[in-house]
Amino acid sequence: MDKDIRAVEAALEKYIPSGDHEEQILLDSVRYSLRLPGKRVRPCLTLAFSRLCGGTDEAAMPFACAVEMVHTYSLIHDDMPCMDDDDFRRGKPANHKVYGEDIALLAGDALQSMAYDAMLCDDTLALVGGDRAARAACVLAKKSGVLGMVGGQTIDLSIEHRSVGIDTVRSMEEKKTANLIEAACMMGCIAAGGTDEQIAAAERYAHSIGLAFQIVDDILDVTSTAEELGKPIGSDAGNEKNTFMSLWGLERCREAVDKLTNEAIEALGAFDGDTTQLADFAKKLANRRK
Amino acid sequence: MDKDIRAVEAALEKYIPSGDHEEQILLDSVRYSLRLPGKRVRPCLTLAFSRLCGGTDEAAMPFACAVEMVHTYSLIHDDMPCMDDDDFRRGKPANHKVYGEDIALLAGDALQSMAYDAMLCDDTLALVGGDRAARAACVLAKKSGVLGMVGGQTIDLSIEHRSVGIDTVRSMEEKKTANLIEAACMMGCIAAGGTDEQIAAAERYAHSIGLAFQIVDDILDVTSTAEELGKPIGSDAGNEKNTFMSLWGLERCREAVDKLTNEAIEALGAFDGDTTQLADFAKKLANRRK
Repeated sequence: MDKDIRAVEAALEKYIPSGDHEEQILLDSVRYSLRLPGKRVRPCLTLAFSRLCGGTDEAAMPFACAVEMVHTYSLIHDDMPCMDDDDFRRGKPANHKVYGEDIALLAGDALQSMAYDAMLCDDTLALVGGDRAARAACVLAKKSGVLGMVGGQTIDLSIEHRSVGIDTVRSMEEKKTANLIEAACMMGCIAAGGTDEQIAAAERYAHSIGLAFQIVDDILDVTSTAEELGKPIGSDAGNEKNTFMSLWGLERCREAVDKLTNEAIEALGAFDGDTTQLADFAKKLANRRK
Repeated sequence: MDKDIRAVEAALEKYIPSGDHEEQILLDSVRYSLRLPGKRVRPCLTLAFSRLCGGTDEAAMPFACAVEMVHTYSLIHDDMPCMDDDDFRRGKPANHKVYGEDIALLAGDALQSMAYDAMLCDDTLALVGGDRAARAACVLAKKSGVLGMVGGQTIDLSIEHRSVGIDTVRSMEEKKTANLIEAACMMGCIAAGGTDEQIAAAERYAHSIGLAFQIVDDILDVTSTAEELGKPIGSDAGNEKNTFMSLWGLERCREAVDKLTNEAIEALGAFDGDTTQLADFAKKLANRRK
């Protein structure tokens, strides 16, 4: 996937206006966060599902970039003092530590509009047409919005310091984590003109790997060592967080991960092309140790 | 315009999901700010330009609501402590004073995605088609984004406590204020299938009334009384703000308002229908005393 990561990063750069603007600090702030080293999982999934549906990378790239922009805006706003108050992100100072809270807030806002500009501008419409562009962008709007990602962050805030049931934890993680991965995979299919069945299969795959990813996260916070994980362990229990592990325990969590991974791989049956890479990716997520 | 205001407010309500959600506080926060009493200038302009181009209110309404949602998100984020730190908005407690900074931040984020959902959902595509919906939504993305409204807010922050020239003040106000009004007027034309010439004329009208509105604001801050204006006067000079008045003085400001108002009315010549209401609106903005 290294080639795809580099292609996405090159494409992202092109969406940031350069040159002599009074608002240079805003552009610098946007660029800073888009350039933070990352695995670019979501945009790579957009490209992979576009290929499975016979689409070109060129046509899928605006949607790949858009989902990464929305992901990036959410990280900038998440790190702010009024939210998680994190000073570091991916080993570098958080955006608000470098540019100040005001610019970080605006950079997040700007990244969200930049995502829709990328998906709906003339260049993109020339590649995929208005109907596909509008449909894909609407998926991103719904999955990242009030009943999607932002809704999930709200649930996360609202259940701090109180015990809730598994349905609430599951709903929070579906919205907070899985929904944006679903948008990434679905948009790849939509941009490439995939069938409704393929779009639904992409959503199922993404939902399963998104939830499995989160459960593995919760497991590792309990079972791993700080050395292996590269970050402190036991933080969930210390913060009395509602997690899959605290509600289900290790055995049931491992069973759930296996079941979700199998469901993800089954969903790939809706595609005729070579799905080996996506199946391997689901297995890799399930078996990761960090 | 009272009937239009009520129609817009009824339509806005329909876009907020109701019922029993874990994220209820987020929905309450979004609803609170959308319901704050306002003149609804932007959505009413969207409806007016749609009618001038022969469109239905039904088809224009999603775009009218979208521009009001983007305007509302910008007010919520503007009022936050890390920005203007205002405790009141339109005579009521600011969103972050009622719901906390974390929820206010998320409500602003959610309103932005809600705007694109409204413009690009199946119901809207059934009314205007994918091409028009995508084109209109792209205008909103550009005009509200990094080189538009958010860019203007950045310039405003970056020129605090230092003197700049008229070009910078003009650029800031064009982006901060005029650009969103431009999007409102242009989207009305686009939704209704107006010609490129009509869309460009709507942009000129909006640009002129947007700038004139801001210059009148600067004038009134110096020449009005606190009683008449309903808010403290002299705040710009007290804060050593760069304004049209501080750079141009009263006479030149009045000349500019007259010129811009005439340009706005001239731009309406591109439309065959009855433009009396829009011409009167431009004059009313120029002659307002509060």
